[in-house]
Amino acid sequence: MQLLITGGAGFVGARLARTLLQRGQLDGQAITRIVLADMAPPPADLLADARVEARVGPLLQHCEGLQHEAMDGVFHLASAVSGECEADFDLGLRSNLDSTRALLEGLRHAGNVPRFVFASSVAVFGPDAGNPLPDLVTDSTLPSPQTSYGTHKLMCEYLVADYTRKGYIDGRSARLMTVTVRPGKPNGAASSFFSGIIREPLAGVETTCPVDPGVTHPVSSPAHTVKGLITVYQATREAMGGRLALNLPGLNVRVGDMLDALEAVAGKKVRARVRFERDERIAGIVANWSRGSTADRAKALGLLPETSFRSIIEQYIADCRERPGYPADALRGLD
Amino acid sequence: MQLLITGGAGFVGARLARTLLQRGQLDGQAITRIVLADMAPPPADLLADARVEARVGPLLQHCEGLQHEAMDGVFHLASAVSGECEADFDLGLRSNLDSTRALLEGLRHAGNVPRFVFASSVAVFGPDAGNPLPDLVTDSTLPSPQTSYGTHKLMCEYLVADYTRKGYIDGRSARLMTVTVRPGKPNGAASSFFSGIIREPLAGVETTCPVDPGVTHPVSSPAHTVKGLITVYQATREAMGGRLALNLPGLNVRVGDMLDALEAVAGKKVRARVRFERDERIAGIVANWSRGSTADRAKALGLLPETSFRSIIEQYIADCRERPGYPADALRGLD
Repeated sequence: MQLLITGGAGFVGARLARTLLQRGQLDGQAITRIVLADMAPPPADLLADARVEARVGPLLQHCEGLQHEAMDGVFHLASAVSGECEADFDLGLRSNLDSTRALLEGLRHAGNVPRFVFASSVAVFGPDAGNPLPDLVTDSTLPSPQTSYGTHKLMCEYLVADYTRKGYIDGRSARLMTVTVRPGKPNGAASSFFSGIIREPLAGVETTCPVDPGVTHPVSSPAHTVKGLITVYQATREAMGGRLALNLPGLNVRVGDMLDALEAVAGKKVRARVRFERDERIAGIVANWSRGSTADRAKALGLLPETSFRSIIEQYIADCRERPGYPADALRGLD
Repeated sequence: MQLLITGGAGFVGARLARTLLQRGQLDGQAITRIVLADMAPPPADLLADARVEARVGPLLQHCEGLQHEAMDGVFHLASAVSGECEADFDLGLRSNLDSTRALLEGLRHAGNVPRFVFASSVAVFGPDAGNPLPDLVTDSTLPSPQTSYGTHKLMCEYLVADYTRKGYIDGRSARLMTVTVRPGKPNGAASSFFSGIIREPLAGVETTCPVDPGVTHPVSSPAHTVKGLITVYQATREAMGGRLALNLPGLNVRVGDMLDALEAVAGKKVRARVRFERDERIAGIVANWSRGSTADRAKALGLLPETSFRSIIEQYIADCRERPGYPADALRGLD
């Protein structure tokens, strides 16, 4: 089978590709080819695999040609992130809405009804006066996005559902919780600090936390997130139930408790590298985000949230020691 | 003030234009100009008013120029209907999603933050396995459209909300219930029969009802629908609450009771012109529709549903006798 991963050079996309290549099969079929489409080329270890083909450039350029390829399955992860979309409204619409639509059109005209997993986001949820955001957002919470990013994700969920209803694709949407700990540099996402406050002190770098320690949020490790995407891909339509969008599981954690876990794993000196310095722009965005989530439909597929943030940090440290994609000096701050 | 009504030559759009011209003002401002944009020219009585300007052709063509006009307010009613969208997927996306987006872009670049009322639809609601459609859909029911038409309406609601959040327009979305009794010919909407089973027998024409008499549905008269659109236009942002989409009020009525009301108003002979002949395509679409609705947020704006279907039929008969847009032979079937 041949697969397409959009955003395939990104952190989650590359990890998904590595996991799939290692498994060698998906949904019982041998993986013969994985196309990684992204603005940047994929990491060297992926390029070295004979099954991998890279397509570099804006996704919009690659979509029309897809009608001649008959991809068996697609993971659509490519997206402009929340901070970018707030800063550049047109870029957000183009990257998130136009690209998804062009992708769906390319797949529709291939005519082979590919399996399609859309990476949506917990950012579809937000407060509104009529319906304040509950303490926990569920699969049945009425979405009310408060960012352009969340708006586009939600619109695309409904587009994916309609293409599926029409029989053009076999689609489903998995709402990712905030993925942490991400390696590398901060990105334009307003959620970037959820990784930064762990990653930077472990690398020996001083950093700031832009929100109060009492802020809570649903998070998921990279490994758990990738497992969620694969499980949703392999789920039967019956197991998905009638609706096609579901929450992936998240660990609902307090920022202060994240730092306590960091101290428990890495010591007081490491934790002391995080200073609270409120950033009104970030704090304002995060104030409209979910404080926690449940994921009953994912649970029915066998997906459970992680049980402690400590285990997420330990996974990050283990990844830094053994995985490609983690910089050599990522743990320089550990004694 | 100058207003734009898209779909302004259609039945609801033309009635809205007539009502506004007669009032002479909207939200306390004198109406100096109403632009009616539609595929067809508006009715002669509207063209005869010096304040009216017609723009004929696809809406997409007119949108870019709007940035140079600074419209004070817009009612966006233009839409491909449900049956058309199911028959031609591309037409639906172009007419409903692309046109709405182009319209919003034109208004955004005008820079004067116009008031904007989007005519959404009760078709945003549908059943899904995780959340079967409740007996009554409310402002807080999770939308799950089962038609492309409903999908586009819902996507546009969220687009309108995001353009509003960004300060590009002052938008709100009013979900119309099924408007009945419409004059003239059946149209491509799957809901067309909700008018046909009253209109045709009153005109002396035999007709069929494609669904069972036990089917229930929320409906609204043309006058009530126009009143709803104007009320939502004039509502302050505070009165709208944090969310921008609301249900307009509907009378929840059984098809059998609609025919009983017809008999009560017009007699047995008229009712006998309706024969039940199930149409699987129509019945299949309608089976996924709301069986009834509530409209609490509209109620807070002073909007209530009609109290009987009999009064809706009586309104239609009165309209046929005195209003432009109703054919001369509309009541030929009345004794």
